Amino acid sequence: MKKYLNIAVIGLGQVGIYLLNELNTKKREIEIKTGKKIKIEAISAKNINKKRRFKINKKIFFKKPLDILKKKKIDILFEVIGLPNGISKNIVETALKEKIHVITPNKALIAKHGDYLSSLAEKNKVNLEFEGSVAGGIPILRTIKEGLATNKISKVFGILNGTCNYILSEMERSKDSFENVLKKAQNLGYAEAINPKFDLNGHDALAKVRILSSLAFNTKISKKKCLMEGIENIELKDIEIAKQLNFRIKLLGITELINNRLFERVHPCLVRKDSYIGNVNGVMNAVIIQGNPVGESILQGEGAGPGPTSSALMSDFLSILRGNIKFPFGISKSKRLSVKSYDLNKYINSLYFRFEVKDKPGVLSQITKQLANYRISIERVIQIPDHKRKRASIIIITHKANEINSSKCLKLFKSNKNILKSPTLIRLF
Amino acid sequence: MKKYLNIAVIGLGQVGIYLLNELNTKKREIEIKTGKKIKIEAISAKNINKKRRFKINKKIFFKKPLDILKKKKIDILFEVIGLPNGISKNIVETALKEKIHVITPNKALIAKHGDYLSSLAEKNKVNLEFEGSVAGGIPILRTIKEGLATNKISKVFGILNGTCNYILSEMERSKDSFENVLKKAQNLGYAEAINPKFDLNGHDALAKVRILSSLAFNTKISKKKCLMEGIENIELKDIEIAKQLNFRIKLLGITELINNRLFERVHPCLVRKDSYIGNVNGVMNAVIIQGNPVGESILQGEGAGPGPTSSALMSDFLSILRGNIKFPFGISKSKRLSVKSYDLNKYINSLYFRFEVKDKPGVLSQITKQLANYRISIERVIQIPDHKRKRASIIIITHKANEINSSKCLKLFKSNKNILKSPTLIRLF
Repeated sequence: MKKYLNIAVIGLGQVGIYLLNELNTKKREIEIKTGKKIKIEAISAKNINKKRRFKINKKIFFKKPLDILKKKKIDILFEVIGLPNGISKNIVETALKEKIHVITPNKALIAKHGDYLSSLAEKNKVNLEFEGSVAGGIPILRTIKEGLATNKISKVFGILNGTCNYILSEMERSKDSFENVLKKAQNLGYAEAINPKFDLNGHDALAKVRILSSLAFNTKISKKKCLMEGIENIELKDIEIAKQLNFRIKLLGITELINNRLFERVHPCLVRKDSYIGNVNGVMNAVIIQGNPVGESILQGEGAGPGPTSSALMSDFLSILRGNIKFPFGISKSKRLSVKSYDLNKYINSLYFRFEVKDKPGVLSQITKQLANYRISIERVIQIPDHKRKRASIIIITHKANEINSSKCLKLFKSNKNILKSPTLIRLF
Repeated sequence: MKKYLNIAVIGLGQVGIYLLNELNTKKREIEIKTGKKIKIEAISAKNINKKRRFKINKKIFFKKPLDILKKKKIDILFEVIGLPNGISKNIVETALKEKIHVITPNKALIAKHGDYLSSLAEKNKVNLEFEGSVAGGIPILRTIKEGLATNKISKVFGILNGTCNYILSEMERSKDSFENVLKKAQNLGYAEAINPKFDLNGHDALAKVRILSSLAFNTKISKKKCLMEGIENIELKDIEIAKQLNFRIKLLGITELINNRLFERVHPCLVRKDSYIGNVNGVMNAVIIQGNPVGESILQGEGAGPGPTSSALMSDFLSILRGNIKFPFGISKSKRLSVKSYDLNKYINSLYFRFEVKDKPGVLSQITKQLANYRISIERVIQIPDHKRKRASIIIITHKANEINSSKCLKLFKSNKNILKSPTLIRLF
């Protein structure tokens, strides 16, 4: 690799502008650590005049990212726009084809097009690095690909969405409603102001799960439909009842190989208050890896925000500058396997149900009978009256039940007019 | 790098033999991940006939490790004997000079001769890798060198000795004495049977602290005398009193830069029972890194044993096979700084003292007066009588006091005949 390298940064939002500042202020340190001199040759964003935390050099600004590749000689390109398709895919694809190394924290892009883009990188002998796409500043991908290389990994799970973890923790702390805490998260920049949906409904965590699976199990990125539930239906009530029962609610992303079948899922879980994962609060992310011979390893850190994400982008950058040409997913695309999916219907958990019901005789009996019909046996019942509104909340914790029975049973509850809304279901972890 | 590589493994104790088995059984996987074919060309140990977990190939056995380098062409050598000097140093030194890559989990060797050996590696353009020397299977060194590259790290601390952490946890769990639990640890292979001293007195943890400092702060390995206290004087009594006060006792290794001065220390700490570090129990290790911009990151995993250590050795091995030639400490030796030491006397902590005293009037007053003379103010006193033996234990928790005062004060207690043994001191974290 040559000594002088030209850099382009595409996207100057919160992450892009923070990264640009890191690149500018750490040139000397980078040279000491890698022997390379870097030059920011081009930057691009939608709006040149937007108010930004750090000043930009307008002389190197390009309105259209693709123009950069036509007019400049770039060696390493950062894509920090964040779309799953469109210009994000376009610029990454074009850059790789032109033998330019690419670094991106774009989980949506990698989860969707990672296999294709990695084959492009491999073909053109350049790096495609995406450490920042999972768990922010925690070097989890590098840990799986390198630090735990040759371990047989059986399961990876954790708290992968800082927005959801902040909301759940803050609801418990402040005893405030989901809606109010979401607003607070938006004001603090933890949740997207315009459309926080993809964080809240589990979509973001699932993209990360898919990336983790492919690295941990050396498989192609799965496109199959998965169990994906978010936190939109969690109410303060659930958090407080969980607390009484010595649990906390956490949105977990989980992936494992069961009898050589891949089982990926994202859903809220009741975890014990005194467990490790039950004590990862706020915007923190945590990933737990079960491997042989290493045993269980845990990595925890700030999962989002421009600082931690830039930390990950810079680690990718130094890896490239040090000349570490690597397969994006640890092994060659041709060696990565396709695996079948585990049958979700066989998923077994104890369940937490909350029913909002009319406060009249016989309702509890209807519910428990229905559960019994589906062989779901009850461990515990809590009924909380709401006399004013002539309603009640019925909380049921079940013994272990399988997914097919619980989902069939849930469907039938919908036709019961005494049950006022779709029951809330949370699985025990 | 060529396609076929010859390997030597020096030392066939628990770790060496486990590693050898991993190398033998994962040849195919290694080839897939790196494109290299490996051959175990030579092995060496004191005793060819010792009973081992896996069979060895006696045809490639050498009684004297140095003979291997004379008679065979070796590309990568594993040193898993573990001495700080002697044959360990000799074989590593000779190998590096002969342009052979070296991998070792030997913290004593690296903490003592790491600077010299790394300059040899640098000069001869080979790798010296030692991921297994700190925190077993947790890829903590790789995380600092690569995953958090360009972060400004201000502090690294954690539980770095699994033997001590097991003993302290097990004393709490079983309510058994230090001596009995130590025996149990020895039977389980968690503590060395013949001489567990270097684990118990903090020496092992301090070697790891020194390695962490040099990586985190890009400094030369400090040789200076440090605050190093072990757990040999912790009694069940201390653990139970700590528990009542909502604390646990943990042996922590801590390193930080304070005003550009290096402050390394190892000593038992009282940590809050509900804190993260207070809940890392058994043989687990945990390392916490404070960096900018990444924030606080945590890594936790099994800190010792042949499985986790082999996991680390194999990660080093694959890194070399992938052709990642790196400076052993992340940057060139010539760029690593020497820093002055922080003045230990300025170390400020709340303190836990336990005095074993004669049960007679005036003793508590003597103690409290002495503390007052050194401006150590008391937050809490607990006196536990032992009527049978006409003794008492006096536990004092102080407000913040500096080290110079507390150590001077401690010395004077020694001349007090009512105080039956040297007081136990534990710092609050």
